[in-house]
Parts: sequence; structure tokens; C-alpha cells
Amino acid sequence: MKNFMWWNPTIVIFGHGTIPQIADQLSAVKVKSVLLLYGGKAIFKNGVYTQVTDALTKNNIAFAELGGVKSNPRIEKVREGIARIKASAVDAIVPVGGGSVFDSAKAIAAGAVYKGDVWDLFEGKAEIEGALPIYGVLTASATASEVNNIGVVSNPEKDKKTSIVSSYLFPRVSIIDPSVQASISESQMVNGGIDIMAHTLERLLDGAEGVEFIDEQGYALIRTMLQTIPALREDPTDYDARSQYAWAASLAHNGSLSCGRGERGDFSSHKLGHSLSLMFDTPHGVSLSVMMPAWARYVYEDHPKPFARFAEAVFGIEGGDEVDRAAAGIEELEAFFRSQGAPTTLRELEIQESDIERIAANASVFAPFGVLKSLNTEDILEIYKIAY
Amino acid sequence: MKNFMWWNPTIVIFGHGTIPQIADQLSAVKVKSVLLLYGGKAIFKNGVYTQVTDALTKNNIAFAELGGVKSNPRIEKVREGIARIKASAVDAIVPVGGGSVFDSAKAIAAGAVYKGDVWDLFEGKAEIEGALPIYGVLTASATASEVNNIGVVSNPEKDKKTSIVSSYLFPRVSIIDPSVQASISESQMVNGGIDIMAHTLERLLDGAEGVEFIDEQGYALIRTMLQTIPALREDPTDYDARSQYAWAASLAHNGSLSCGRGERGDFSSHKLGHSLSLMFDTPHGVSLSVMMPAWARYVYEDHPKPFARFAEAVFGIEGGDEVDRAAAGIEELEAFFRSQGAPTTLRELEIQESDIERIAANASVFAPFGVLKSLNTEDILEIYKIAY
Repeated sequence: MKNFMWWNPTIVIFGHGTIPQIADQLSAVKVKSVLLLYGGKAIFKNGVYTQVTDALTKNNIAFAELGGVKSNPRIEKVREGIARIKASAVDAIVPVGGGSVFDSAKAIAAGAVYKGDVWDLFEGKAEIEGALPIYGVLTASATASEVNNIGVVSNPEKDKKTSIVSSYLFPRVSIIDPSVQASISESQMVNGGIDIMAHTLERLLDGAEGVEFIDEQGYALIRTMLQTIPALREDPTDYDARSQYAWAASLAHNGSLSCGRGERGDFSSHKLGHSLSLMFDTPHGVSLSVMMPAWARYVYEDHPKPFARFAEAVFGIEGGDEVDRAAAGIEELEAFFRSQGAPTTLRELEIQESDIERIAANASVFAPFGVLKSLNTEDILEIYKIAY
Repeated sequence: MKNFMWWNPTIVIFGHGTIPQIADQLSAVKVKSVLLLYGGKAIFKNGVYTQVTDALTKNNIAFAELGGVKSNPRIEKVREGIARIKASAVDAIVPVGGGSVFDSAKAIAAGAVYKGDVWDLFEGKAEIEGALPIYGVLTASATASEVNNIGVVSNPEKDKKTSIVSSYLFPRVSIIDPSVQASISESQMVNGGIDIMAHTLERLLDGAEGVEFIDEQGYALIRTMLQTIPALREDPTDYDARSQYAWAASLAHNGSLSCGRGERGDFSSHKLGHSLSLMFDTPHGVSLSVMMPAWARYVYEDHPKPFARFAEAVFGIEGGDEVDRAAAGIEELEAFFRSQGAPTTLRELEIQESDIERIAANASVFAPFGVLKSLNTEDILEIYKIAY
């Protein structure tokens, strides 16, 4: 086991009926004015907007509003948020939405106290030296942005989807009421579930040794997703399934599965998927159901051990040699994705074979990357070919 | 799943060679003077005392010293610590030791800023409204005091072993270097391991429903202990086993396994064991290897489900009905304790049959207690009879 630091200071308030507590949490630290940040119409339909604004009003907390944050959130909206804050001083940012809204809130929070253009922070041209505090209400579980210090934003002008990471970016408080997620569409729930599985698998399949306990936590998480995704397709109002899906989402990417591994995980599949999201606006989860099996098929023969252990622990696969069990585990994983209606090939996304070189070139900007196997430009191209 | 709040702000610095970082952490918050609190001679033998004091000296941090904290720590030593602090102002407390030292540090930290006698806080006569900050170095993993907000202390004058709980009592920083635990005696390691298992089982066996994901995390933790305790008996210097044992200890009782359960766990076995520790100075782990199987045997027939699920998930027990599987799981658990040299009867502790009523009377002060089954005075007496 490698040395690590574990710190996760976010207060999570979890459960049915907890949303109005956001105002109490803000009042407790004497916040008087916030920027309310959200995405589309979902929070108006499911009543969350009313729950939040009623609670703020009751506690005499003023709020400016900024809606329209999209999935694969863009830097333009972040800049808009920063401008709003600089024009009308607020004490805190209140993202109300899913991962994209939380990610955007983090970028706005850091950008609001930085003198230059916020994209500098994504390009490493400047350090994050502070941020406005974030008190959020999560309405769609998947990315774990509600409990981590990472913000991922796209910059279409530069053809880049990249992240900021800073201890200033942990939300102070995140409220997670799983019951409001019952109105999420099936495809969004499945995509989110695949993202949660991918966050876990990026760790489980990184080849770290001497961390069986951490691996066991990851297997537990994957087993939970194999149960809850089908359960929620069957009955979106299954509260216990929804709650466990939601809490699994938070734990999959709050840093706990990285403890002792030496790296934060492999994340090749995420990086390979980011290019699809950037170029074709492919939903994040879909990019992963396509790229993760392709990546696995490309690397497992030379590195069968973590795949074989995963296959045994999660799918109960026995017999054959390590490579056989590894292959069988990848088959099972892909079969699960397909059984839940998730695409597993670029072809299904209506991406043309002729686009592959361009996609590979986009992803290769960050090459070499990967922990289990370091991927170079040629490797990346091969993986997209497998994915096709 | 029940509603919950999750918050655990302690910074954990984990791994070989991390101990000197305690001084850097103190310097980072401008601490100039600390009370160094420890137990017996172990930290002089294993070099931890020198590592800590060298680091403090190098960073110009003054330290007063108070040694002699015992297992099942006593309120007298806490009062001594408080007196020392009130006589010579210090900015922080630095426990260097195991759970008893951390628990005592918490009581001293709370007592040092309270005007009355510290025992008032244990009896609920006054609220904890602040505490000196704690920056600790853990040298024996078991109780998770390094990552929770609980302090357990005995008061022999009042025949009580009880706890304080407050968000002020989370250590700010805990350093865990598993390599220094190689010098712990086999019996202490086994006892600690049983305590870790018990912290987990108190949750797994509380009968909570709709928390399969949390249960899975608990099963993962128990499986880890079933591997690491024998591995460390075989080779106390096995760093990966020691690290996983240590991290499992922290996660078993940092609150994470209580999420969604509605209660913090059953804790009947702990309460039944506390009377043994108080009256006979029975090591905490030994009290649990004796009382947990006895408690399980008393309650499982009326509440077989959590025992059966545990038996299946951890020991792979199949066949028969739920009660059969539950019974088989309890057998396996007790057999594991015995295989590691742990006593499982009061008789082995040389406690007399004639003492049982007196022990039951001591434990009954807190009755009724228990979540899976609420235990009254008669139940408590029966369980001690089974344990005999």
C-alpha cells in the first residue's frame, strides 16, 4: 500500500425532505446573498426550485439566479457566472442540479476570486488561491462533484475538456435528497450509473498492489450498481435503490477508492471518452460505456490480474487461467451495459469510421496517459478502432 | 434507507515515514506549544517518541509531556492533563499512542475549556461547547478514535465507563504510520482486530433494511480482517497487511458504516463488554470476543436475517433455512476468534460464576439498550450466563 492523505471536509445531508436545510446551513454561517446556479427545466418540474427558493426566502437570504448550465458544461457559462458575481457581490454559490452544475459552480467559485480569465486556472497558468464557498443541492447523482474537489469544464474554442482540482473546491455542504431523482429519465439514470461504475473501475483496474481492502470496497460498489440500475429501470420510485445508487455515486469518486493506490486511478477511459463528449456532445456515461470495454480489450492480455480479480469478485467467474477470467469479466461488463440499453460502440453513436483519426488526434493531446498501461498516440488510435 | 448526515473533517496522513509531518501540520496553523500525551514505554522502544519530539524541536514547537495513560483510560489522568494545561497555556494536544491516548486527549481537550469538572460532560450535566484542537500520531490501530468524535473514559469511583461525543472532538490531523505498529504484541493486535470486527458487526447486525450497499462495505471490512489478523500473526512486519488492518480500523468506526441505518449501530456487545473492562480490567477486544458471540446466540433466532446475510456474504454459507445459516455464521465467527487465540468465555477470563449477577447489575444501569433487540435486565443476565 502506498502512502496517502485522506481529507474530505464536505458535510453531506442525505435523505428525503432535506432540501430546505440548505437555507439553515447558509444562515448558520451568516450568508446573506447567494448566486443560485442551475441547468434546464428539471428543477422547475420536480419542485426543487420551489423548495430551495422558499427556504432561502424564509431565511431572508437574497439570491441572484443563473440558469442554462448544460451537460458537458462550457466555459462561457462559467464566465457569465463570474461576471454576475463580480457585478453584484454574493457570499456563496448555491448549485442546484447535477454534476455539470456543481462543476460549473466550482469554476465560478475559483474564477470569482481570481483576477485574470478563469481558463488560466484550467491551463495551469495560475494557481487556485481561494474560492467562494459552495453550498449545493444535488438533483442527479453520478459525478460525485458534490463531494469532491474537482471541476470539469469544456472549452470548445480550444477543443478541450479539462479539470481544475483544489482543496478550496470541496463544497462546504451538499444536500442529497434521492427522492427528487425519481423524475430523471431512464437513459440519464443508466448513463449516470455507468459513470459511477467507471469511476470505480478506473481505480480497480489500475494495477495497484497491496490494496485488497480498497479493492473490496470497489467491488461492493460495482455489485451495488449491478443491483440498483436494473431496479431503477423497473421502478424509478424505488427509494432504497435510488438512495444506494446516490450514495454509491458519491463514494465512487470522493477519493476514498484512491487511498493507498499511489495514483488517483487510471482514468484512460475517461480521457478517451472526453474527446467524444467534446467533439460530438456524447453524454459522459455513453462515452464510458463505449470506451471502457474498448480500453479493457486493448490492455487486459498484458495486464490480466486486476481484470481477473474483478471478474471473480463481481461476477463469480472461476476456472481457466487469469487471461480467460479477465476476458470473461470484460464480456460480462459489456453485456451488462448492453442489457441496460447503453451503447458500446462508436457505430451506435453514428460516429463515422472516417472520424476516428480526428478523435484520436484530439485525445492524443494529453498522451501519454494511463496508469495500468501508459497509452501513446498509436495505442489511442487502436482503442478507438476497437470501439468502432 | 434512513436519512443521515455525514461529516468527517479529520485530515489523515497515512503511511511509512509520515510521523515527522505532525510538526509541519502544527506549524501550518501557527501552533507554538503543545501537550504531548502518551501511554507507557512503547513509544520510547519503537522510536516514535524520538520522531515526534525531534520534529517538534526542529519546528520550534514547545511541548509539555504527560505519560502514563492506561488502556481503559481513567478520568483521573484526564483531570491531571486538564490541570497541566490550565497551569501552562498550550495551543493544542498531541496524543501519541493508541485509542486510549486519543480518547483521553479528547476528554482533556473538552475539559480544558470547560469551567467545571470534566466528568460533568460524560454525565450530560453540561454541553461540550468547544475543545482544544487535537493533532495526533496513532501508534496502535483499533478504536478509530483517530478519526471520530468519540472519547471513552472510565470512572472507577462511579463504576462507569462512558463516552463523550461532540463535533469539537474530531482530531484536526491524525498521522497513521502502520510500520510502527509492527512492534505491537500479538495479543494486542488480535484484540484490536476483534474490536475492529466488532465495530463493523455492531452495524451489520443491527437489523437496518435498505442499506445493502453499506452492508457490503461492512462485509468487505470483515473479510479484510479475516485475512489480515492471521497474516500479521504469521509476520508482524507484513506492511500491506498492517496497512490494511490500520485503514480498516479507521473506516470501521469513523461513522461511515452507520450511514442510512438510522442508528449508530447496535452496540449491545460493546456495552456488555464495558462492564468486564470496568470490573476486571478485561482488555476491550477480549471483552468483545467473549460477549459478541454470546449476544449473537441470545438474539439470532428471533432476528435471523442480518446474521444469515452476514454468514452468506462473509463465510459463503449456503443451504438450510435463515436460522440455520445464521447459526452457522455465528459458529464460524467464534471459531475464527478461537483460531486467533482469543477467549470466547467468561470462564477463560477466570471470572467466577458467582460474579455474573454483579456484572449484569453493572451493565443494567444503562438498560434497556440494543437496536436489533432491546435488552432488559433479564436479557442481560441471560447473555452473561451464555458467555460463561
